[in-house]
Amino acid sequence: MSGVPQSVLVIGSGLIGASIGLGLRRRGTRVWLQDADPDAEELARSRGAGESGVPTDDPELVIVAVPPASAAAVISEALDTYLTSTVSDVASTKSHLLLDVEGVGSDISRFVPGHPLAGREISGAGAARADLFADRVWALTPSERTDPARTAQVAAMAASLGALVVRTTPEAHDRAVALTSHTPQVVSSLVAAGLAPLDEADVRLSGQGLRDVTRLASSDPELWTEILTSNAGPVADALDGLLERLTAIRDGLREGRADEVRAALAAGVAGARHVPGKHGSQPVAYAAVPVVIADRPGELGRLFAAVGETGVNLEDVRIDHAQGRPTGIVELEVRPERAGVLATGLRAAGYEVRD
Amino acid sequence: MSGVPQSVLVIGSGLIGASIGLGLRRRGTRVWLQDADPDAEELARSRGAGESGVPTDDPELVIVAVPPASAAAVISEALDTYLTSTVSDVASTKSHLLLDVEGVGSDISRFVPGHPLAGREISGAGAARADLFADRVWALTPSERTDPARTAQVAAMAASLGALVVRTTPEAHDRAVALTSHTPQVVSSLVAAGLAPLDEADVRLSGQGLRDVTRLASSDPELWTEILTSNAGPVADALDGLLERLTAIRDGLREGRADEVRAALAAGVAGARHVPGKHGSQPVAYAAVPVVIADRPGELGRLFAAVGETGVNLEDVRIDHAQGRPTGIVELEVRPERAGVLATGLRAAGYEVRD
Repeated sequence: MSGVPQSVLVIGSGLIGASIGLGLRRRGTRVWLQDADPDAEELARSRGAGESGVPTDDPELVIVAVPPASAAAVISEALDTYLTSTVSDVASTKSHLLLDVEGVGSDISRFVPGHPLAGREISGAGAARADLFADRVWALTPSERTDPARTAQVAAMAASLGALVVRTTPEAHDRAVALTSHTPQVVSSLVAAGLAPLDEADVRLSGQGLRDVTRLASSDPELWTEILTSNAGPVADALDGLLERLTAIRDGLREGRADEVRAALAAGVAGARHVPGKHGSQPVAYAAVPVVIADRPGELGRLFAAVGETGVNLEDVRIDHAQGRPTGIVELEVRPERAGVLATGLRAAGYEVRD
Repeated sequence: MSGVPQSVLVIGSGLIGASIGLGLRRRGTRVWLQDADPDAEELARSRGAGESGVPTDDPELVIVAVPPASAAAVISEALDTYLTSTVSDVASTKSHLLLDVEGVGSDISRFVPGHPLAGREISGAGAARADLFADRVWALTPSERTDPARTAQVAAMAASLGALVVRTTPEAHDRAVALTSHTPQVVSSLVAAGLAPLDEADVRLSGQGLRDVTRLASSDPELWTEILTSNAGPVADALDGLLERLTAIRDGLREGRADEVRAALAAGVAGARHVPGKHGSQPVAYAAVPVVIADRPGELGRLFAAVGETGVNLEDVRIDHAQGRPTGIVELEVRPERAGVLATGLRAAGYEVRD
């Protein structure tokens, strides 16, 4: 039963559902797609994410990729309709959902709760990609009643799409995402909301930090209301902790206790080391070659052409954006043993390369 | 007295002081550099940021670029030593500093408080650049007692370095940076600190959002304690507002009031529109051409080479980083009228370009 599944029904053809369909078809799986919205289903089909209609036999796997508010009902219906199929889902919170599905009395042993952490700022099948899950974490949160063979089957499917499968309990998952995903969303929205009293000139007194912290604030309020309310307990607990720390630093400031402020900031430095994708947790450590670019149109294009001339492969690029424009220093990331060649070549081409 | 100054003394040779020196010297100004730390002064001098020693006549301008805690004392001393010079500074909070300088009884009419918003994650003269201030906001906060001709002189100096000069009052400045800079720093630190109870597997259940929100949390606690305590009142007020909104959303979640959650998130969407450098506030609107890249070493280098072949100038690049690696879709930003040529050229080269 493990390995890439031969037949999969995907219910819900948005970004996640359509991307799963695209990825599985590329690996030879037969995929059926269903969506309550015929236009959404047609868009996903036209992009090659699956075929319409209903499988005649039970599919090996049914993946429910509908909005969180309707997930429990659709999962139960799938378990009751396809009596031999494994059913999984992609909802971003798990404990509440599991209780809801259990409450209906469906055969919960075939249900493997899942959560691929692979959103994009764009939604819908139009943004779907076969490689959306490559190198992304895909959490599976089986309960004690889940058949382990079913869990292995869903894990193999997720791994076949390039995802990094992480198994945990529904409770640990929900507590984790409350801290790593839902709290950041809440603070991003609230910090952005706090800008309202500023006039346009004053709000210009800001830097990259404000852009980073408020990027999530542009997310869809409707979807996020569903997500946050479906994980209300763990999020409220996480916010309790944040409120406590925030009150302490506020009081420290008001009462002139600098030590309290310093301790709070130091705890943040320690916490930031745990954030994935920062501070050396990259699968490959690249060397950064910082190059100064002038603030002229097309300067970036000229730089990349010069990089091409050196014959050194570029692995990543980081650009600082001042006031919405790329400017200043571009960090070119390359394999460490190639950094010297790149720096020499760019200097020869007239670029200022920082040590 | 306006235009680029002929002689400037920079006191404090860290990132900001050394960058001012580099920029002014490039424009023909004679620059003296002083730092309490001889090694720091030597590093800045070796990078070409200025000469050692003391000017024989009063310099036109003295710029104090020392850490916030010692700024007031150094400014007063400069006003009392160079009796005809204009004195400015770069400290990130202004009201408290102005009170401190006024308290000493120096000639406050020659003091023009300033704040260039141009930090980098790296500090020290080694990271200094002549173009650090290009397109960055440089706030000036003259008091009622500041001689307007002195303010004009500092504004001309900042503009000569490419900065966008914004004039405001010390109070409005401090209230603005409390919301746009200090509050984001505090929440970033506190969200990161909140990750402490998670084990490594659970903290992997996170995405780009957590990285964005916690990026500032790695900042130097010592420097930020100085900054926050020097703006304690406005920051505490800003945190009061945040605490109120956070409590409302926490209570809304705990008591099942989804409307309250939705309203808070919607206010965040509205607030995010004010953030500079987002949502069309770019000086030039570029068109984004999204290109799919495979997850292979050097793929980015090959893409830029292909872009070069099309002859289209690249204005900006945005790369999604999954788990610390560039992957998936790269957004190439070009002038709108060139987007079609680029897309056609890249498709001909075998790339998948999204519409």
